Amino acid sequence: MNYGRFASYEDFLKELEQFHGKMAPGGVLGLQMVNLAWELLPPGIEMDVICETRKCLTDAIQLLTPCTVGNHWLKVVDTGRFAAVFYDKRTGKGVRISLSTEKLKNFPVIHDWFFKLTPKKDQSLEAILGEICRAGYDILDHRPVQVDPQVFKPRDKTPPVVCPICGEAYPPAHGDRCRGCQGVTDGTFR
Amino acid sequence: MNYGRFASYEDFLKELEQFHGKMAPGGVLGLQMVNLAWELLPPGIEMDVICETRKCLTDAIQLLTPCTVGNHWLKVVDTGRFAAVFYDKRTGKGVRISLSTEKLKNFPVIHDWFFKLTPKKDQSLEAILGEICRAGYDILDHRPVQVDPQVFKPRDKTPPVVCPICGEAYPPAHGDRCRGCQGVTDGTFR
Ligand SMILES: [Zn+2]
Ligand SMILES: [Zn+2]
Repeated sequence: MNYGRFASYEDFLKELEQFHGKMAPGGVLGLQMVNLAWELLPPGIEMDVICETRKCLTDAIQLLTPCTVGNHWLKVVDTGRFAAVFYDKRTGKGVRISLSTEKLKNFPVIHDWFFKLTPKKDQSLEAILGEICRAGYDILDHRPVQVDPQVFKPRDKTPPVVCPICGEAYPPAHGDRCRGCQGVTDGTFR
Repeated sequence: MNYGRFASYEDFLKELEQFHGKMAPGGVLGLQMVNLAWELLPPGIEMDVICETRKCLTDAIQLLTPCTVGNHWLKVVDTGRFAAVFYDKRTGKGVRISLSTEKLKNFPVIHDWFFKLTPKKDQSLEAILGEICRAGYDILDHRPVQVDPQVFKPRDKTPPVVCPICGEAYPPAHGDRCRGCQGVTDGTFR
C-alpha cells in the first residue's frame, strides 16, 4: 500500500480529515482505488484522473496524486457513481475503477455505511475503516478504458483577452465574450 | 495577512507548490483574495466559495479555507475569469472578488506575467511574487453578491440506489438511471 507523499496510513488519514473537513471512509476507499490504479497501469507513466463524483473520493485523489482540480490533471465528470478513470496523460489509455455494489454484499459494515442503512449515531468509524482495509481490492471492479483525445490534448496556452462587456480577462477560445457574459452564472449568483 | 492553517507565507507557498505541482503566482493572488473576503464578510460566518476558473486560484482556496471540491463547499462555475464569490453558506449573502484588468495597468510586472507578455525564460518569479505582495488589494475589484438559494440549499442526503442499467450506486435525484447511463461520459471515455 502506497500513501503518495504521506509516510503512513495515519498521516494520510490525518491530512484527509483536515483537508476534507471530516473523517471520510470514502477517502480510504479512494486510497485503495488509487493503489489499484498504480498496480494496473504501466510504471513510469504520468497519470491523470477523471473522477465521477464530487465527494471524498475527489479529495483523496487530490491528496494522493499530483492531480488537482486547479492544475487540471483531475477532471470531474459527474455521473454520481463512486468511480474514477486513471489514465496515461499522453495516450489516454487507462483503467476505470469502481465500487462494486455486488461485491459490497460480502462486506456488510461497508455496505450499510455506503447505503446509509446504519444511523449515523450507530456507525463505528473504526469498524468501517477496518473492513475497508481488510476488503482491499475485493470490493472494486475495474476495466480498461480509452479516454477521448479532446480530454487530454495539451491545454491552450493562448494569452487571455479582455471581455468587451465586463472588462475582465478570459480565454479567447471561450468566444467573443466571457462565459459569465454568455450567461453561465445565471441562476448561481447576481 | 492570514494564512489559514499555515504558520507563515513561506509555509503556504511550499504547500501550494507541492499541492498544485508548481510555483503559481496566481495562488498568491488567491491568498490576497481570500484575505480580502475575510475582511469584507462579517466575522463568525461559515464561508463557502464559488470559483470562476479551474486554475491555481482553485487550489489556493482549497488550501486556505475549509472549502474543497470534494466536500462541496467549493463549487467551480467556469466563466474563465480570475474571480471568486465568497459567501455566507446560510444566507447566500457574499462578495465577488476579481482581478481588475484596469488596476493591473499600474503593476506592469504582474500585468505582463498575467497576459503572458513576458516569455517564460525572462520571467522572474521573485519579481512577480514581490509585486503581488506589494500590490495587495490594489489590483482587486469587489462587489456585493447574492448567491441563489439552489446553490446553498442543504445537500440531499438520500441514500444511493442501484442503477438498473450499469448496476452501480448513484443518487436517485439524478433520475431513473445514473448520469453515466444518461450519456454524460460520451466523448470523455469509453
Ligand atoms: Zn465578460
Ligand atoms: Zn448506470
